[in-house]
Amino acid sequence: MDAWLVNDSENTAIPVTDRGLAYGDGLFETIALREGRCRFVTDHLARLEVGCERLAIPFPGAERIERNIRRLCKQNGARDGVVKIVVTRGAGPRGYAYDPTAVTPMLCVGLAASEPPIVPPDGIRVRLCTTTVSRNPQLAGMKTLNRLPQVLGRAEWQNPEIAEGLMSDEHGNLIGGTMSNVFIVAGPELVTPPTTAAGIAGIMRAKVMQAAEQCGIDLRERDIDVRTLEHVDECFVTNSLIGIWPVSRLGNTRYDIGPVTRRLMDALAAQGVSECRR
Amino acid sequence: MDAWLVNDSENTAIPVTDRGLAYGDGLFETIALREGRCRFVTDHLARLEVGCERLAIPFPGAERIERNIRRLCKQNGARDGVVKIVVTRGAGPRGYAYDPTAVTPMLCVGLAASEPPIVPPDGIRVRLCTTTVSRNPQLAGMKTLNRLPQVLGRAEWQNPEIAEGLMSDEHGNLIGGTMSNVFIVAGPELVTPPTTAAGIAGIMRAKVMQAAEQCGIDLRERDIDVRTLEHVDECFVTNSLIGIWPVSRLGNTRYDIGPVTRRLMDALAAQGVSECRR
Repeated sequence: MDAWLVNDSENTAIPVTDRGLAYGDGLFETIALREGRCRFVTDHLARLEVGCERLAIPFPGAERIERNIRRLCKQNGARDGVVKIVVTRGAGPRGYAYDPTAVTPMLCVGLAASEPPIVPPDGIRVRLCTTTVSRNPQLAGMKTLNRLPQVLGRAEWQNPEIAEGLMSDEHGNLIGGTMSNVFIVAGPELVTPPTTAAGIAGIMRAKVMQAAEQCGIDLRERDIDVRTLEHVDECFVTNSLIGIWPVSRLGNTRYDIGPVTRRLMDALAAQGVSECRR
Repeated sequence: MDAWLVNDSENTAIPVTDRGLAYGDGLFETIALREGRCRFVTDHLARLEVGCERLAIPFPGAERIERNIRRLCKQNGARDGVVKIVVTRGAGPRGYAYDPTAVTPMLCVGLAASEPPIVPPDGIRVRLCTTTVSRNPQLAGMKTLNRLPQVLGRAEWQNPEIAEGLMSDEHGNLIGGTMSNVFIVAGPELVTPPTTAAGIAGIMRAKVMQAAEQCGIDLRERDIDVRTLEHVDECFVTNSLIGIWPVSRLGNTRYDIGPVTRRLMDALAAQGVSECRR
């Protein structure tokens, strides 16, 4: 990140006693800045507010966060890049307990200027991670600061030709990529894993699901046994910064960039996800 | 904490880009300071080193950490209290990936002076948490900075008469207290849950297991169905700061402080765990 605002001040330091450091007691958002605008910012802030409610962290407020973003963009002159928002339960004494009547959350907003990522025209190569994703219904769906499984999953490979690693839970259910949600096309169905026990309820995932509905594509949220992946017709991953990345190779299995993936990329491009333009 | 050293300097700030904040990408230790000495410090630092190896974080070194602790104790004049050590993978660019050849870990050492906690002579009251502990073999046993389940578990009650909450995994296996390990006595056996899929390999837990072996008590590490707790003969929780706390009440179930608990408390008291003196 090129610049940060910590609790509305230009600062790159946080207290060592912050519960975000101590316990990962907080949430984050990563938003695409495209042509001077934060894409789907309302959706991101709505998800952050729901997460704060679930963790009983006072939500810092959408207006305040958007003011921070505008200030960083203005100072920086950035038109394209990444905005990161971190909200924690703030500083506190040692121990898991906190006084629910006296929580002062910490808000960090960061900006990094960067060119929008390019969708590889022939699709991406992915691998299966051996690190498993933790299941926990009380945390599932949220983008919490507890992300060690993703860190360990991403550390499994260094080969730059591999763009993403797919992760399963301990039962062998596909959950998502280290940094993305995953969809498969199997016969007539578009399928994505539910986010009720593990995984993140991605904003781009929700946009793809809406687009599928509008296109009349039969969508199911259901468990996907990771061992069935070599038999699926199409596979793609999504996140807020990349849009849709078609998967063309998983280990020795190759996939075509199929008609469902193409239709959804066109639908997202029409909604302003410029990375999906073909 | 009354005083901190961050990377060997008097400081209470860390970079907002630290991966400990971003992802909980690190580990911590909490050590009892008693009569001017860090109790079982060798065991704590050995556990921390093993955790660093598992996460591929360069271990800052026992000598350096102990030098930090001595400096804080000298400055502070503290004889009794708590020492906290945090080691993270350090600052980094956005994203889960890191360059394994260029990790500069962050070391934070904190000290808080406080009187040793008193073991309630009649035992403690505990409750069952509804928040579940995440299972993840790649993380199990370690005291990582990913502790949101424990934060949410501890937030379930405010009643100060309840000293601890017991937590299970999603299968209903007892894992431990929010801040402690748990042991039960059922018939002739002393039983504690394994730490291979969830839970923390507590230092005081290991001392109790050693003491049980020395006392000729039949110890088993095996899964405990949380629904069987009302039928057990004795129950106690352990951690580095409290030693052993006998459990006298769980919901409407009452337990006597039985002979096995008493023998183990005496054995630990003889090893210098002064809180266990009766």
